[in-house]
Amino acid sequence: MSFDVKVSSSRIRSDVFKRKIMSAEDAAALINPGAIIGMSGFTGSGYPKAVPQALAKRIEEAHARGEKFKVSIWTGASTGPELDGALAKANGIDFRLPFNSDPIARQQINNGEMSYFDIHLSQVAPMAWEGFLGKLDTAVVEISGITEDGQLIPSSSVGNNKTWLDLADKIILEVNSWQTELLDGMHDIYYGTALPPHRKPIPILKSDDRIGQPYFNVDPSKVVAVVVTDSPDRNAPFSPPDDTANAIAGHILEFLKWEAKRAGLPNSLLPLQSGVGNVPNAVMAGLIDTPFEDMTAFTEVIQDGMLDMLEAGTLRMASATAFSLSPEKAEYFNQNAAFFRDKLLLRPQDISNNPELVRRLGCIAMNGLIEADIYGNVNSTQIMGSKMQNGIGGSGDFARNSYVSIFMTPSTAKGGAISAIVPMASHVDHINQDVQVIVTEQGLADLRGLSPKQRAEKIIENCAHPYYRPMLRDYFERAKKGSYAQQSPHLLNESLSWHQRFIETGSMKI
Amino acid sequence: MSFDVKVSSSRIRSDVFKRKIMSAEDAAALINPGAIIGMSGFTGSGYPKAVPQALAKRIEEAHARGEKFKVSIWTGASTGPELDGALAKANGIDFRLPFNSDPIARQQINNGEMSYFDIHLSQVAPMAWEGFLGKLDTAVVEISGITEDGQLIPSSSVGNNKTWLDLADKIILEVNSWQTELLDGMHDIYYGTALPPHRKPIPILKSDDRIGQPYFNVDPSKVVAVVVTDSPDRNAPFSPPDDTANAIAGHILEFLKWEAKRAGLPNSLLPLQSGVGNVPNAVMAGLIDTPFEDMTAFTEVIQDGMLDMLEAGTLRMASATAFSLSPEKAEYFNQNAAFFRDKLLLRPQDISNNPELVRRLGCIAMNGLIEADIYGNVNSTQIMGSKMQNGIGGSGDFARNSYVSIFMTPSTAKGGAISAIVPMASHVDHINQDVQVIVTEQGLADLRGLSPKQRAEKIIENCAHPYYRPMLRDYFERAKKGSYAQQSPHLLNESLSWHQRFIETGSMKI
Repeated sequence: MSFDVKVSSSRIRSDVFKRKIMSAEDAAALINPGAIIGMSGFTGSGYPKAVPQALAKRIEEAHARGEKFKVSIWTGASTGPELDGALAKANGIDFRLPFNSDPIARQQINNGEMSYFDIHLSQVAPMAWEGFLGKLDTAVVEISGITEDGQLIPSSSVGNNKTWLDLADKIILEVNSWQTELLDGMHDIYYGTALPPHRKPIPILKSDDRIGQPYFNVDPSKVVAVVVTDSPDRNAPFSPPDDTANAIAGHILEFLKWEAKRAGLPNSLLPLQSGVGNVPNAVMAGLIDTPFEDMTAFTEVIQDGMLDMLEAGTLRMASATAFSLSPEKAEYFNQNAAFFRDKLLLRPQDISNNPELVRRLGCIAMNGLIEADIYGNVNSTQIMGSKMQNGIGGSGDFARNSYVSIFMTPSTAKGGAISAIVPMASHVDHINQDVQVIVTEQGLADLRGLSPKQRAEKIIENCAHPYYRPMLRDYFERAKKGSYAQQSPHLLNESLSWHQRFIETGSMKI
Repeated sequence: MSFDVKVSSSRIRSDVFKRKIMSAEDAAALINPGAIIGMSGFTGSGYPKAVPQALAKRIEEAHARGEKFKVSIWTGASTGPELDGALAKANGIDFRLPFNSDPIARQQINNGEMSYFDIHLSQVAPMAWEGFLGKLDTAVVEISGITEDGQLIPSSSVGNNKTWLDLADKIILEVNSWQTELLDGMHDIYYGTALPPHRKPIPILKSDDRIGQPYFNVDPSKVVAVVVTDSPDRNAPFSPPDDTANAIAGHILEFLKWEAKRAGLPNSLLPLQSGVGNVPNAVMAGLIDTPFEDMTAFTEVIQDGMLDMLEAGTLRMASATAFSLSPEKAEYFNQNAAFFRDKLLLRPQDISNNPELVRRLGCIAMNGLIEADIYGNVNSTQIMGSKMQNGIGGSGDFARNSYVSIFMTPSTAKGGAISAIVPMASHVDHINQDVQVIVTEQGLADLRGLSPKQRAEKIIENCAHPYYRPMLRDYFERAKKGSYAQQSPHLLNESLSWHQRFIETGSMKI
């Protein structure tokens, strides 16, 4: 046994749990080959850091002995190198759901070595309860502390942890003292969910409505190990907005101001949902200088730009299921948690992403894309139709149910070799009905109420890069002449030729 | 003026409205070129029959004089030959939403002569309220009567009528005495909807919960005409289940019994949602002979098979937005309405199809498809990627949010020339995440929890027609060798070649 007595006494205030403290290696020894494991973690925050690495070591040793050892891993969303990276490197993951952004795991998925089930993040917990995914053996969940009476203080992400703790036969807890103790009270864990026919309305009417409790319940008899850690979250570096990001953000801000006026939206606008990256951060930065005020976010993740908006007072509060901060901002948050803690709410992802709530609140959804076709069908997961980038994540939960569904991207990738606007999407994650606005640095296409051919004109003229615009016009004009029919004209022997050309030559350019 | 005094006094019990009675021709004269018109009608029931024909005549006369005259038509869903057929034949429709099944209108859509905006049926009313579709000039709504105090008794469909009546500047009512007077009391019109940020939970917890009122409110000063009609609904002929339909139904019934046991579902199962046609009718017929009882339907339309289930007592009640009966069954319903009326509830389509409710109630969704690809992406609208069949309708509302989303189809069409299972869908309406079960007469593929390649194996082996199975296996095997990546292997220069071959040769066969 190796643990820090000081940490354990301040963070683990229940003697029942103190007696279960052990090393990560001893905890990992409790996990068997073939196990289905529910781990914490969402966008690189709140994932267990020690046990997965110890498990990876155990798997490598078993493989060295010629033994088979693989496990199934369920999480909230993406984790970090200590989890997906370490286990994938050990060739230890047989089946993975529901989201991954780890480069090693991604490579195994795209090599066909790892089965990957990519699903709407709001549906993971209900599916686990429905039982067809199999029996959850073990939960490995990072928390920030344990109360005197044995409740668990969540960490920097909530994800599916409530469900894992309820469903697993045995539970391994990582108590991470790197997480600020001021996380205590920032969570809203709702215990009112049920499967049909017992579901009830979820009683959230505003982004800041609290409907649950700050802690996870846990059956202490299921807890087989408590591991003490002091490790930072993954926290991807902040990429500052470049000219492209600022141009995209500029178009979105102009649209939001115009739409607020047109539709008579309140000055607090409607709750923001936003993916992560430098474009969303540029939008957040821009929103500080608009007339909008007293805004809220009802979103998946809290990112750098939102903390700036909270400090500026533009944003009143943000509801999410996880943090996704840069290392600097995570440090800043930990030092200034007292300011932020009553302005942030972390919920389970089946609540943060719930379609009922997204539609009721009328979120303004802003998500990235890999490619959109001229009719507005969006591919946000699979490059060239087959290569998994990350996963659909919560984009489907938000895009279909939002007040307005905005997708944004630079108009080209790979130094211009790939056009983000293509004749036909090589994979579809968001059908044209769920894609209402497309924005690139070139401009914005408001597609609401338009038929497919009307959409094509707007997307080509407003969003495509000037190099690819004539090629798209040419395809569209010839498709209108040669297509089987005219609702959304296509030349099927040519519609995916841009992708094929990229595969063969490394560029979509002619 | 030409109207039936007897009808007007029994059906129109308000003097204010009696004074507005006029001929369909006089009413149609109140509609101007360029008007945006919201009409009643959903799956061939409850649509106005007289005014659209009079309007078509007026348009034809204007065209004969060399004048321009087109209008935009919004409805609930599909209507009948007196509406879409007559107006399309007159070249009178410039823009159409949200659904069409009329053959003349379909031809114009696919010739590129009519702009067609194909959207989720639950979203039509909210979009109309949001205002970006334009200003609704005129509502033309069929009703079954007017109460003494000027409320409107709905007809055989509710659709978007509440919204059209609220939003239109002027209103034309058709009072159709063909509809049974016993419709009075069968409707549940909810006036609690709002746009964000004012939306509230919709307080339905069971299929039979009533949350509204039986009548539409209407501002009598906006009513410019009342037209008396006595015309049957379109009511498509009933196609009796054939061997293929019975085989598909058999697989579904077996699955439902297995799933109910596996998941511990109640003996009343979960609320049924079902498209129309002979396959759903075969499922309904089969359900009468299962141990399930006291069931409910929470669906779009009430079809022949549901009335049989109600009579057999298997079904306790059905909630929908419209009838979609065969002529014989419609006649039968009118004669036996006293038996059925307390077992049926018709609601606005933004309630019948509401994602919040579909997910809460956990509907068992059964919808048709045109084609599915080997990874389970479903095309339910556009033949060969460009030819609009009908529209997405409510399938997206139900498929994404249901307890289990079942798609069913014969494994081939056009006498075997078209395979319903293809390498890549030529258009995607339902992404693989929203397609959990695919059924053909060949068998059933339960895709829940599977990665794309696992899905492909099940779909090819269980669902594809034996003629096409080796061709699909061959594609899949070669794709696993030659694809850019392995999450969902594809050969992009071949993935749509089956469709192209059909276009060129009339068959997907080699």
